[in-house]
Amino acid sequence: MQEAIKTDLSATPEAALLARRHRLLGKAAPLFYDTPLHIVRAEGVWIYDAHGRAYLDAYNNVPVVGHCHPRVVNAIASQAARLNVHSRYLHETVLDYVERLTATFDGSLDMAVLTCTGSEANDVALQLARQHSGGRGILCTNLTYHGNTTAVSALSTLFSGGRSRSPEVRAVTFPDCYRPLNGLSGETLIDAHLDEIREAIASLKDEGAGFAGMLACPIFANEGLPTVPVGYWPRVAQLVREAGGLLIFDEVQAGFGRTGNMWGQQLAGVVPDIVTLGKPMGNGHPVAGVVARGALIEAFRDEVMYFNTFGANPVSCAAALAVLDVIAEEGLPGNARATGQHLADGMRALQARHPLIGDVRGQGLFFAIELVTDREAKTPAGQIAKRVVNDMKERGVLISRVGQFDNILKIRPPLPFSTSHADQLLSTFDACLTALGE
Amino acid sequence: MQEAIKTDLSATPEAALLARRHRLLGKAAPLFYDTPLHIVRAEGVWIYDAHGRAYLDAYNNVPVVGHCHPRVVNAIASQAARLNVHSRYLHETVLDYVERLTATFDGSLDMAVLTCTGSEANDVALQLARQHSGGRGILCTNLTYHGNTTAVSALSTLFSGGRSRSPEVRAVTFPDCYRPLNGLSGETLIDAHLDEIREAIASLKDEGAGFAGMLACPIFANEGLPTVPVGYWPRVAQLVREAGGLLIFDEVQAGFGRTGNMWGQQLAGVVPDIVTLGKPMGNGHPVAGVVARGALIEAFRDEVMYFNTFGANPVSCAAALAVLDVIAEEGLPGNARATGQHLADGMRALQARHPLIGDVRGQGLFFAIELVTDREAKTPAGQIAKRVVNDMKERGVLISRVGQFDNILKIRPPLPFSTSHADQLLSTFDACLTALGE
Repeated sequence: MQEAIKTDLSATPEAALLARRHRLLGKAAPLFYDTPLHIVRAEGVWIYDAHGRAYLDAYNNVPVVGHCHPRVVNAIASQAARLNVHSRYLHETVLDYVERLTATFDGSLDMAVLTCTGSEANDVALQLARQHSGGRGILCTNLTYHGNTTAVSALSTLFSGGRSRSPEVRAVTFPDCYRPLNGLSGETLIDAHLDEIREAIASLKDEGAGFAGMLACPIFANEGLPTVPVGYWPRVAQLVREAGGLLIFDEVQAGFGRTGNMWGQQLAGVVPDIVTLGKPMGNGHPVAGVVARGALIEAFRDEVMYFNTFGANPVSCAAALAVLDVIAEEGLPGNARATGQHLADGMRALQARHPLIGDVRGQGLFFAIELVTDREAKTPAGQIAKRVVNDMKERGVLISRVGQFDNILKIRPPLPFSTSHADQLLSTFDACLTALGE
Repeated sequence: MQEAIKTDLSATPEAALLARRHRLLGKAAPLFYDTPLHIVRAEGVWIYDAHGRAYLDAYNNVPVVGHCHPRVVNAIASQAARLNVHSRYLHETVLDYVERLTATFDGSLDMAVLTCTGSEANDVALQLARQHSGGRGILCTNLTYHGNTTAVSALSTLFSGGRSRSPEVRAVTFPDCYRPLNGLSGETLIDAHLDEIREAIASLKDEGAGFAGMLACPIFANEGLPTVPVGYWPRVAQLVREAGGLLIFDEVQAGFGRTGNMWGQQLAGVVPDIVTLGKPMGNGHPVAGVVARGALIEAFRDEVMYFNTFGANPVSCAAALAVLDVIAEEGLPGNARATGQHLADGMRALQARHPLIGDVRGQGLFFAIELVTDREAKTPAGQIAKRVVNDMKERGVLISRVGQFDNILKIRPPLPFSTSHADQLLSTFDACLTALGE
């Protein structure tokens, strides 16, 4: 998301399109790459530009079962032709979906509120936690993004220098075994982060905001997928709950099989009180939601007249049901594990040959490749990462970058990514890195 | 939205479905009618229940071009099969749509931010106004609803006793020629409401919130579609702007041909600074947005990294383009005027025979029928209105009710509503009212 650049493209074939876009959406509407990609169609793990060129998509997690998967397209088309209306009448699709969805979680997470976007889901989660606790204060990390509503963007510290502008939000650091706080490790690293959380909660309470809970991605996707010491999350959960707050896991990026597990919380080893879902849920169709302990949702609905016109409509639910079907039938979490392992092995082989690769971190088909100019000093190579992302695109592979220094390559393809796709990604990356050294 | 009731339905065929719904979505998830309607398909102005019965839909404005209009369904299906991805690549559909959309407004409203829901659109509008003005204070009316995000629900005074719980929001009354403030009329009625607005702005400024603007529906849809004295809106716009605020029109209900005009602001006679759109925009597909003066959107985008994953995706834009096509090609605003006039004439004829009908107000195909037990005293007949809404449903016609006393019947059908549909609505209403008197 960091690449909202305004290159002079007057000499490119896309100049006219870009000028129209600037006029209609604004010059700063975010756009990827130094030379933006003008795309016209997509299928599986491939995106095609207006000149007929195919790009291997190793970035987009929204089309989790593959771009334009016929099963999802057919579900949308046939339901849109039959019934597409709000949820104040009884219809079965929403019930079929929520039953299937909640069955994939721990039994305590047994009820849902459907929304249209992950931002809306996180906004509802904040409302649930604040209502339950009576407090307003929320913890998040200092390098994160959870969405764009007024309330949720107060947590989007990635774009506000690591701090929140809201007195109701405190940003804390997260454990990162590659760049650990004060060189600590294991339990002492956890202790240091827990102390910080404890102080942040105390500060929220001291300053009158109270404490409602902590909202975080269980795999810290926007923070750069750091390797977290074993035992961190259970201790955080205990601390947050003892302080009267709820643990909210934002599974918008981690969920739906991405990590080789259905949910990121399985890696974290704790069951949260509230889960928020989004991006891949409808493979691109705007559907999102909150899954939580039923008592929390009942209490919320008793007090707040929450209604979402498009949320829980039959078409969104049909799309989301088809996504669950395909994930199960095509064994996508298993494929994420297998292809992910193949990709991890290949990345580590490249790391042995390219000193620029400081760290390789992966969970299923979600990779963070940290580029550094000095392995000892771990000097972030942000500008080089930018060149790599653009060069990879020129060579036909789409990735992005993330992290406080923008030096972490973010690789997160649709899940039907095969070992041969992984090999193409690896050989292209190898060629990119080799060219950099020339 | 007021009919979130929990009737004992254990003896009905829908009991099992309702029990599942309570378990999965919560007992208080809003549901229409004493005996909920179990629906399975819809087409044009008709909704069909699980028992094969057809209901004339005189309530739903979202399927503005008719339920499951093939043109919109085909646009969704074919675009979903071709490309469905976020807007950080160049693609043409979003530009085609925003160009067509902005062309329907005054030339000053020339840029758009696309979102997925009207709530998100209103949340963005608040962010735009607050950034532009440097103030936080917002005016709304004391009987309104604009959406469900944390920030926007602070304006939803319909569910909070006419006041906002936020110190950044002031709720003001609105002019209503049927129930005028202190029995005033014309300019003196406007003066009284303007005094109240002036005081509310002063109070926001005095208490440190500053003043960002006023957000309202140009036809006061949720307030019960009151007849507003001529000249009200231009004077409000002037006052709000002189105080340093922006005028935001929420066209989520008023827009897309509903009133016989493309936009409600044409009836208000002023061009706002910001417009928010939603419900009918994609005929049920989750698409919404903000149209505003370009300078406002540029300034917002320069400061805030606003990105909406599903907003501006090609499928949403294809659906929305098809809606604009059908509105134009089927002449739906003209039909709204013609059928609306026929319906208005019929309602006034019923009013002459049924003393319960206190007031008939309509704009195109949007009607508010105020039921009263005493025409002189204008005693609101809220319980009778509830019976009428349920009885109309039992007789095969879907409507709802609204207003501070829940005594105003809300009639707002899909726009391909013909005079014969209007006649069915009128004769059913006549039968309902007659049965009440027996």
